[in-house]
Amino acid sequence: MKIPKSNFSEWYNEVIDACDIVDIRYQVKGMPVYKPWGFKIMRLCFSQLEGMLNSTGHDQTYFPLLVPEDQFGKEAEHIKGFGGDVLWVTHGGEEKLERKLALRPTSETIMYPMFSLWVRSHADLPLRVHQTVCVYRHETKATKPLIRGREVYWNEAHTVHATEEDCEQQVCQGAHIYKQFFDMLAIPVMILKRPPHDTFPGAVYSMAFDVLMPDGKTLQAGTVHNLGSKFSKVYDITYSDVHGQMKEVFQTCYGISMRCLSSLIAVHGDDKGIVLPSTVAPIQAVVVPVFFGEGKEAILTKCKAVADILAAKGVRTRVDDRDIRPGEKYYHWESRGVPMHVEIGPRDLAAKKLVLVTRDGEKKVVEEEKAVEEVHAMLKAQDARLFEKATKHLQDNLRSAKTLKELKELMAEKGGFVKIGWCDEEKCAEKVEVEGGAAIMGTEHGKMEKGKCIACGKAGTAVWAAKAY
Amino acid sequence: MKIPKSNFSEWYNEVIDACDIVDIRYQVKGMPVYKPWGFKIMRLCFSQLEGMLNSTGHDQTYFPLLVPEDQFGKEAEHIKGFGGDVLWVTHGGEEKLERKLALRPTSETIMYPMFSLWVRSHADLPLRVHQTVCVYRHETKATKPLIRGREVYWNEAHTVHATEEDCEQQVCQGAHIYKQFFDMLAIPVMILKRPPHDTFPGAVYSMAFDVLMPDGKTLQAGTVHNLGSKFSKVYDITYSDVHGQMKEVFQTCYGISMRCLSSLIAVHGDDKGIVLPSTVAPIQAVVVPVFFGEGKEAILTKCKAVADILAAKGVRTRVDDRDIRPGEKYYHWESRGVPMHVEIGPRDLAAKKLVLVTRDGEKKVVEEEKAVEEVHAMLKAQDARLFEKATKHLQDNLRSAKTLKELKELMAEKGGFVKIGWCDEEKCAEKVEVEGGAAIMGTEHGKMEKGKCIACGKAGTAVWAAKAY
Repeated sequence: MKIPKSNFSEWYNEVIDACDIVDIRYQVKGMPVYKPWGFKIMRLCFSQLEGMLNSTGHDQTYFPLLVPEDQFGKEAEHIKGFGGDVLWVTHGGEEKLERKLALRPTSETIMYPMFSLWVRSHADLPLRVHQTVCVYRHETKATKPLIRGREVYWNEAHTVHATEEDCEQQVCQGAHIYKQFFDMLAIPVMILKRPPHDTFPGAVYSMAFDVLMPDGKTLQAGTVHNLGSKFSKVYDITYSDVHGQMKEVFQTCYGISMRCLSSLIAVHGDDKGIVLPSTVAPIQAVVVPVFFGEGKEAILTKCKAVADILAAKGVRTRVDDRDIRPGEKYYHWESRGVPMHVEIGPRDLAAKKLVLVTRDGEKKVVEEEKAVEEVHAMLKAQDARLFEKATKHLQDNLRSAKTLKELKELMAEKGGFVKIGWCDEEKCAEKVEVEGGAAIMGTEHGKMEKGKCIACGKAGTAVWAAKAY
Repeated sequence: MKIPKSNFSEWYNEVIDACDIVDIRYQVKGMPVYKPWGFKIMRLCFSQLEGMLNSTGHDQTYFPLLVPEDQFGKEAEHIKGFGGDVLWVTHGGEEKLERKLALRPTSETIMYPMFSLWVRSHADLPLRVHQTVCVYRHETKATKPLIRGREVYWNEAHTVHATEEDCEQQVCQGAHIYKQFFDMLAIPVMILKRPPHDTFPGAVYSMAFDVLMPDGKTLQAGTVHNLGSKFSKVYDITYSDVHGQMKEVFQTCYGISMRCLSSLIAVHGDDKGIVLPSTVAPIQAVVVPVFFGEGKEAILTKCKAVADILAAKGVRTRVDDRDIRPGEKYYHWESRGVPMHVEIGPRDLAAKKLVLVTRDGEKKVVEEEKAVEEVHAMLKAQDARLFEKATKHLQDNLRSAKTLKELKELMAEKGGFVKIGWCDEEKCAEKVEVEGGAAIMGTEHGKMEKGKCIACGKAGTAVWAAKAY
């Protein structure tokens, strides 16, 4: 890239353009066009997530985009939280619609009236569905591609349970699936229970998956919510138990957006461009013929044969037979994050060998017949190095502060997550924000540690503070 | 089903509800909810289509939902054709938007301004992209689930070419891909070049894929359009050729909607419910343990082992171990279109045999060790029988008429496609519609036959007439 990653914000803008991720020149602000390479990576991320959900009892579905105003407004906190940002359809052709229709900003108000029809008895529970769709918000803040926009590509899961315990357990399962998902992307996350003032509108509590970005700010890349029976009361979802008695249900919902793609780019990328773990690389190994004049045909034939063997064993492979220099090809695919290239030249051909080079620079000359196992092994090892490197970076940016002044200095120095004490009062959270330059992100999943409030000095709990995107 | 297929319209409504395809009780008219089984079948259809497009040089992308009014209105015929049916977003929260935004009724006006930025030189051509999204129309006519609605799930492909010949060739390739797609669904189609008055707004000409429905009406289930340079002139898409000279481009677009799902249900279904070709069956073989009291564990273990072997060889398999009678299980899966069930009882267990039964009633007792090949062979043979049966039905409903009276009688008797002569005048087409009860659907792909106009008697060409959905 022309811009080094140390200048993150501009590097990011260059990369998403130069590496064919999105085109931001579309005429509606905050609605980028996904280019083929970007869309392929994103779809690989979401297919993996969909697979994880399908194999844990979630059924994939599709619910409509539009919700009538009266349905949308039923849950009081929810409408308060989303109402101002909703895009409204008011006309069909020239004709004014009888009822305004909202573009889904999330699908609770669309799904739950249907759940009320679907759930009748205990035999219908648990109910678990998910869908991959776009949601819409009238963002008035500055937009940033794949981070904040008006059209958000995401997967949302919604579940219904007979008891509070089942519901609580589902929150854990949801969080577990998401942890596996981010592991698969080699992205370390902080799983934090948000403070009450930052809980999803209509939820009992919210867990968030925060990713540390290179500029020290954090990106909320996934959330899991315990909705309790707040929505089910409003949308009248009940079931008859084994004794025929009507009971209320308990619900959860969780979502991951296209921010998984911006996280991937931001966390793993380097000065050369994007770096992809093999799990979501549209091409895992690109085979490049290396010849100077003679022997071209034989080498090309060999390249195709090797690519066929790799492809048959599940490696996403491509032969780059374009009429340009090998160096240009390496540069092209490296910048787009392809995890490995395979070089085959005249000497390799004669010796029945291949040269395997990973995106992070490991090089190995291997026997042609061992290609499949070596490629798999080197890709897996590189994925592990990516995760290790990112994890170390996160660990290096977990610090703690005893005073607001110290917090402010740490945030100004390099950001990251800073552990502080907090008394649970919103006005102290505001003070932390104003005087310390960081927001309360929450407590760590499953941990409960005491800590004196950094703002008022009262007894409280240890929480992580950070500056969020 | 309670209703026989001979009563098609009511049978269809019963099937899509009873077999978990869609739920039509959602509060916005013409926007059904896809239930898990229906969504799985539809996604299998579209993944196959996406695969066919990806492997023939089309790149999958995602373009935004919303298009500003001024962009949308640029192509005069296009806006005339779509303008009245468009849903408009006018407000964000309480605030009125500066420019109205249309929900895409199709994506020409969204993609082509971007193509104008992407296409610079001959090296950028051909450009071929596709996307699977929902499109929106403010339907004022009666809606019917998966046939006519306000939210239409579809795949649309758009291509750009340097020459008129390349463009023409792409139309053929598009039509060829769609033919393969419908073959894969075992659905015979009539590929007809629509008359000028029924051409896509903004196109030079349109080819349509018409499916014969059980009630004798026809369903347009796919279209391929030659757009020539009508759109590219308006959206200013040009390229510099090898000599550096600026040239105009030529374009095509083609789409297939969720009508492929209603076609599947309508064409293959029977009194027992849905019938699915194995290519798009979410479960291809359901394994059912048959026991009466003792030996339950051993049989269940065997069922799971057989299912694992089948699954490892690419058969989508499920063991139905629910605590209900085998007969209920057969009924359940047959009604949902599962192409085969595998029975394993105590005698089969002892003899190391399996009983394979196809959806259309072929039964075979096979050696356990030959399960994989037998299952594959029987599924393939059944798919061929489905196609053969549907093709025969279509052939039996291709007839011809010499007079409007005769046409009217044929249409009243059982509908289908009726070949007539037509002079190419729109007013004669209207007469055919009013007095003959059928619309001009067009000429057969690649065929040119003369025929005296059934309405005015002048020289003309042979065209197919039918009553369309």
